[in-house]
Amino acid sequence: MGSLRAHLLETNPSCELKPLDPEEFRRQGHLVIDFLADYYHNVDKYPVRSQVEPGYLSKLIPDTAPNNPDPIETILQDVQNDILPGITHWMSPNYYAYFPSSGSMAGFLGEMLSTGFNIVGFNWMSSPAATELETIVMDWLGKMIDLPPSFLYSGGGGGVLQGTTCEAILCTLTAARDKILNEIGRDQITRLVVYGSDQTHCALRKAAQIVGIQPRNFRAIETSPSNAFGLSPASLRDALIADIAAELVPVYLCATVGTTSSTAVDPIAGLCEVANEFGVWVHVDAAYAGSACVCPEFRHFIDGVEKANSFSFNAHKWFFTNLDCCCLWVKEPGALVNSLSTNPEYLKNKATESKQVIDYKDWQIALSRRFRAMKLWLVLRSYGVANLRNFIRSHVKMAKQFEFMVQMDKRFEIFLPRTFAMVCFRLLMPSSKSDGKEPARVLEITNELNQKLLEMVNSSGKIYMTHAIVGEVYIIRFAIGASLTEEKHVKFAWNVVQEHAEAIIAALD
Amino acid sequence: MGSLRAHLLETNPSCELKPLDPEEFRRQGHLVIDFLADYYHNVDKYPVRSQVEPGYLSKLIPDTAPNNPDPIETILQDVQNDILPGITHWMSPNYYAYFPSSGSMAGFLGEMLSTGFNIVGFNWMSSPAATELETIVMDWLGKMIDLPPSFLYSGGGGGVLQGTTCEAILCTLTAARDKILNEIGRDQITRLVVYGSDQTHCALRKAAQIVGIQPRNFRAIETSPSNAFGLSPASLRDALIADIAAELVPVYLCATVGTTSSTAVDPIAGLCEVANEFGVWVHVDAAYAGSACVCPEFRHFIDGVEKANSFSFNAHKWFFTNLDCCCLWVKEPGALVNSLSTNPEYLKNKATESKQVIDYKDWQIALSRRFRAMKLWLVLRSYGVANLRNFIRSHVKMAKQFEFMVQMDKRFEIFLPRTFAMVCFRLLMPSSKSDGKEPARVLEITNELNQKLLEMVNSSGKIYMTHAIVGEVYIIRFAIGASLTEEKHVKFAWNVVQEHAEAIIAALD
Repeated sequence: MGSLRAHLLETNPSCELKPLDPEEFRRQGHLVIDFLADYYHNVDKYPVRSQVEPGYLSKLIPDTAPNNPDPIETILQDVQNDILPGITHWMSPNYYAYFPSSGSMAGFLGEMLSTGFNIVGFNWMSSPAATELETIVMDWLGKMIDLPPSFLYSGGGGGVLQGTTCEAILCTLTAARDKILNEIGRDQITRLVVYGSDQTHCALRKAAQIVGIQPRNFRAIETSPSNAFGLSPASLRDALIADIAAELVPVYLCATVGTTSSTAVDPIAGLCEVANEFGVWVHVDAAYAGSACVCPEFRHFIDGVEKANSFSFNAHKWFFTNLDCCCLWVKEPGALVNSLSTNPEYLKNKATESKQVIDYKDWQIALSRRFRAMKLWLVLRSYGVANLRNFIRSHVKMAKQFEFMVQMDKRFEIFLPRTFAMVCFRLLMPSSKSDGKEPARVLEITNELNQKLLEMVNSSGKIYMTHAIVGEVYIIRFAIGASLTEEKHVKFAWNVVQEHAEAIIAALD
Repeated sequence: MGSLRAHLLETNPSCELKPLDPEEFRRQGHLVIDFLADYYHNVDKYPVRSQVEPGYLSKLIPDTAPNNPDPIETILQDVQNDILPGITHWMSPNYYAYFPSSGSMAGFLGEMLSTGFNIVGFNWMSSPAATELETIVMDWLGKMIDLPPSFLYSGGGGGVLQGTTCEAILCTLTAARDKILNEIGRDQITRLVVYGSDQTHCALRKAAQIVGIQPRNFRAIETSPSNAFGLSPASLRDALIADIAAELVPVYLCATVGTTSSTAVDPIAGLCEVANEFGVWVHVDAAYAGSACVCPEFRHFIDGVEKANSFSFNAHKWFFTNLDCCCLWVKEPGALVNSLSTNPEYLKNKATESKQVIDYKDWQIALSRRFRAMKLWLVLRSYGVANLRNFIRSHVKMAKQFEFMVQMDKRFEIFLPRTFAMVCFRLLMPSSKSDGKEPARVLEITNELNQKLLEMVNSSGKIYMTHAIVGEVYIIRFAIGASLTEEKHVKFAWNVVQEHAEAIIAALD
């Protein structure tokens, strides 16, 4: 069909190009699938972190859109030549940076179906299957991680797919804010206070800023190594009491299971107990580590969640679902709906009026929404619960192996004990160099060494890791979660780290 | 490869299933492409609006996730049997409801590539190509619709891809709010006022609610038939003066080009003149009609935009880009960044510190972001500017034809003159029935007739249209924009409407 079209266009230039022709779609679709399959075959051969310089692409691409069509073959060639060098390869087996985005075959296929149907699922009516599949799949997933029934539809709560944790926090914070303001008066907004720890994701501060919390009323409560950088319920209580004494109104706490810097775990049960006492909404952000809770042996990290108001994790982080897919459950969907519902005439319909359906537009920021449940459904069905648990466990096992290798090398230290599939480690300053120096100066030099090590490793393009600073210590984060990573890649990664460390240490002499 | 895998699994049940195997990806990817190509071949055979009843899917799907994997063949069969009946077919050539989502082959392929690379493009470093392609493509598109240079990167402004207009409004409103609050004090939030018309999309009220504007400070200024339901600058001025007299602080106006109810156009130049005088941020929401501005003959509808602060349209509505893709341009990117930036240690990198790159996370709500520029780039390159203009024009031409057919039938009236590719019309009450009745009663009965007509037409499954109420009049909206729609479908649609109208009129006797 492709050659037929080319022929037609050539012999009859006035022949009309259509935005969608099923046979041309088939031909070009197969080409792109083959392109991507080949990409996955070769992805370990590219530098993991892109090595381009700022502005590289404007030198390769014209500054206006083309007037005439380009064939898909030309475009794919340009993707290969111009785009791929500027891609940081999150799908590479050698990717260990940030938290990996564990895209999978099933996640991809689900997104294809969703994109192909291209429905705009703002309410039930706009495509009942999108809403109903989401409802069903969110209960499936909730049961898999053993959420209390109060978070499931079957128990009066419910789950909804958001794009990201930022949105999940923004929506629940808006709901929590309005619950309080409806009691004490809308103009009391300047008295509201939001709580997290100094390890909480920056999404909380941003959401607080967006919903109009006064910057002076944002609390990033200090954590310490003695609690493994978890938020202490006693510290929370102190902060709450101080704010109430200052005639402020505590409204929302974001507790984290698996912080970004070091996968620290806030003690959910203890925090909920304190927060409940003060009527504060508790959101549990398990963006990364929530996925692990499908394995019974990891479920205890969210013990106490039954006392929280909302819970979320990102299926696009460590649950084999392509970006974006954040799973949010709330106990009280009505609180979301009260804050976020709209009811313009042009969307009115019998199903909504019957109150027998869910209109997810009222559970999120945007009106329009993609059919995200499709990809989650494909992930769950294509792999099944048993395999999904095994995928998670294999990542944890590889992280244990990496941790062991680090422990065996006296030049390094594990900074914090590994909890999930991320290892936080650092190169130590050789004792021959540190002896007699002030501890502060040793810390400073060690931090610089690790920064240098990381930059050298990443510049090699062989693997990609990123850093954090926790309690003034610069640490290297080795996060396993890319779908193609196998044990041989982890061993290779450790060799790369060791080689560069040797060079750095040698240069000290 | 597929049969090999099945064979391996059968003969060796312990054989490990992988989340991503390139050859299995290829096999299953081709199956899904064929599934979708066949779907597009047959999409006109399905009832356009799904005919299922609430709760249909829970009767077909188990209430827990499967423990073991299901083959893709089984899953696709279930999509066919269980999901498709619950899909409202936005891709059908007979779809005329809401505003269509003009998915296309190129939009789909671009989304495939983006989903396949699965990068998380929060900042430049995380995949330079994603940021740089977005920058380039937004300038391409800005030039295509002849945006003033002040909105382009080349002129000190810039464009960014958001998911939806709701997000574009939320981000710009947050920026506008903070610009004022930074001057007058953060605790003055209760004095801020937001403006739109009674025709403005519900996204504005929702955004105002989220950012903490007091509900009593939201102005939906009345429009009238005499201005074709556009917002009059004089009415805006009156509202501003009254609010200032009441010691309130005007902050943001959302002007619309192509309202949802009737594609009404607010007079941008006149509104900007008034708003500028009072220091009010003007956002121009051209969600639907902005796409038409790529055609020089439609560009005049956004004349005056050079005096606005921000401008957005949805490429997923009428620009052949699959959901979701909202194009937002701002004159002052710094205002967005001031409100929305975050700078946690774990995201720090040399490129950001060099200030030579854009980190789009600071231009939007969420941290994580998909590589949306890819699909817009594929749309622009696969079709080219000339064809994209022709696609738009062909929709407008079909809408003219439909309008003409309605005008020729004395039983109907065109409610408002057509401006773009949407026709607003209604069935009239036969004069034999209306003579001697109060006008209010005639309006009431006519509204009921049209409601009944619309429900009958949509229940037939042959076509799908939706309604609005404008100035108390119930109108039927016939929005052309689905990518597969051709003239024959429009003629068919009109026949369907006429047939059902005949039945309704006959029943009056």
